[in-house]
Amino acid sequence: MAPKQWSNFHVGRECSHQKWSRRNTPKFTVSSGDTVSFDAIDSSNGQLDTSSKASAIKTLDLGLANPVFGPIYMNDAQPGDVLKVEVLNLEVADWGWSAIIPGFGLLADEFPEPEIKIWELNREAGFAQFKNMRIPLRPFLGCMGLAPANDEELSTVPPTNAGGNMDCRELSVGSTVFLPVQTAGALFSCGDGHAAQGHGEVCGTAIETPIRATLRFELLKNQPWMTAPQFQTPPLAQIPNPLPDLGTYGALGVAPDLYEATRSATRNLIQWLVQTKGLTRSEAYILASVTGDLHIAEVVNVPNFEVAMTLPLGIFS
Amino acid sequence: MAPKQWSNFHVGRECSHQKWSRRNTPKFTVSSGDTVSFDAIDSSNGQLDTSSKASAIKTLDLGLANPVFGPIYMNDAQPGDVLKVEVLNLEVADWGWSAIIPGFGLLADEFPEPEIKIWELNREAGFAQFKNMRIPLRPFLGCMGLAPANDEELSTVPPTNAGGNMDCRELSVGSTVFLPVQTAGALFSCGDGHAAQGHGEVCGTAIETPIRATLRFELLKNQPWMTAPQFQTPPLAQIPNPLPDLGTYGALGVAPDLYEATRSATRNLIQWLVQTKGLTRSEAYILASVTGDLHIAEVVNVPNFEVAMTLPLGIFS
Repeated sequence: MAPKQWSNFHVGRECSHQKWSRRNTPKFTVSSGDTVSFDAIDSSNGQLDTSSKASAIKTLDLGLANPVFGPIYMNDAQPGDVLKVEVLNLEVADWGWSAIIPGFGLLADEFPEPEIKIWELNREAGFAQFKNMRIPLRPFLGCMGLAPANDEELSTVPPTNAGGNMDCRELSVGSTVFLPVQTAGALFSCGDGHAAQGHGEVCGTAIETPIRATLRFELLKNQPWMTAPQFQTPPLAQIPNPLPDLGTYGALGVAPDLYEATRSATRNLIQWLVQTKGLTRSEAYILASVTGDLHIAEVVNVPNFEVAMTLPLGIFS
Repeated sequence: MAPKQWSNFHVGRECSHQKWSRRNTPKFTVSSGDTVSFDAIDSSNGQLDTSSKASAIKTLDLGLANPVFGPIYMNDAQPGDVLKVEVLNLEVADWGWSAIIPGFGLLADEFPEPEIKIWELNREAGFAQFKNMRIPLRPFLGCMGLAPANDEELSTVPPTNAGGNMDCRELSVGSTVFLPVQTAGALFSCGDGHAAQGHGEVCGTAIETPIRATLRFELLKNQPWMTAPQFQTPPLAQIPNPLPDLGTYGALGVAPDLYEATRSATRNLIQWLVQTKGLTRSEAYILASVTGDLHIAEVVNVPNFEVAMTLPLGIFS
């Protein structure tokens, strides 16, 4: 029997594009049940490496960022169908980067200066070290998406109802994502390897890394009720976690606007890290992006909504 | 040695108020380290019971809703201090209610008709039954808060930076909440028992229930950097969960506005429940409120933000 990771098809780094478009020529056609491997450069598109300094962020060409790899054509896929994508395997590089990019991120107005953090990824032990903290690796593809319904050419940065740059940390190994097909053949592409990220990705970057992915595709015919991506995650017991189970610490943000409540929760957690853990504000902002989780505590007690950002306390152990 | 739940002080149902105000007369004074028990009626203030029908929602007097119990005066507490509150024990009644209240909730425009669901709470087994689903009980106080800094009298419905109706599901037994003191004595009150709730409380109600709470108080002097509630949760292994670990199902909402992305994620999860689990839209909306969790997937890929609502699949087992 073929191993789970076995694939007939491979999409290499040369199959790169930066627009979601149904005019992109597919690399090959797959059928329901087929498995495909992908080799994706990091989201800087090779502009950053282990020797990069903050000055490299200043000269980063964002027009080159967030390439995706593909597309592949799903035989018989039509609008109204759903493409089911199972994440079978993900291999990250032995390094990654996170950055504060001026003008980008949830607190862009409060963090105007560029910063970079180069990570060494300990793939065997399953974590990345940051001072006295250990960030558990839970890799995923930031980008998995389909071409749009008409002839428009869309940037690969914002996500859409056909997926794309979802940056959804739940889509790791063992998870399945369901994408509503917009055009004949679906035209799936992926990229943007993340070694770890919290819910929210608040500073605008995860631990960005080159990644090799193995995905299995299935076509679900005639599911027009599904109009945006949906997903399934594996049992908790199947998710690798090298950290001790010490609970979480969380900060609330309270405001009449959900976006401001989100900013406030993030700012308050950063303040806690600065006050009690001795981090700089920039370090705390990056840490919040790669391992802090934004939950909506309540969104009904008008006029004040409430967002919580939590951190696993095991990272300090 | 006194047991953990032992308390010198008790706040009964008669110590009820519906405004946050520093003019409320405290029931007694406590010192750092003291433990207090509270007996709180449900958030309808006794207007609903196990025999209530949807018609009772139509005539519900919201002016009576969300009473809190207290206040108690913390010796030596001053603005700039923080009141630390440990949740030692919570006992819910053997019943609860959830409702769709016209004009209230995240999707109020899409659910104009009143509905009520009366729950039987199986406290020994740790769940509430809903058709073929089991909702795990994880009780918490929806309201824990302090009086404001000046002479204003605030409604107990919206939360503030001094806490109040936080409806934050993480504040269950074993958790600790830190509340920034606004006025001399802090003037803590609590109430609004919830037997179970998801992150978000989307239909506007949790499983609302009478509750008995035992809380331990501590005063942390001179912590002016903390300007909104923060909290700590216990290790996962200490949180009771009667359900099998089957992973989650989630729906994404994608929109340029975080509130609309939240509405969309909720609507999409409801649609999945209707299509695949045979629930009515109203049943699905209530289920999403009591056990669906809203996470912010990403809040940086402008112009489209993304919210996920997830459900534990163990509820269907």
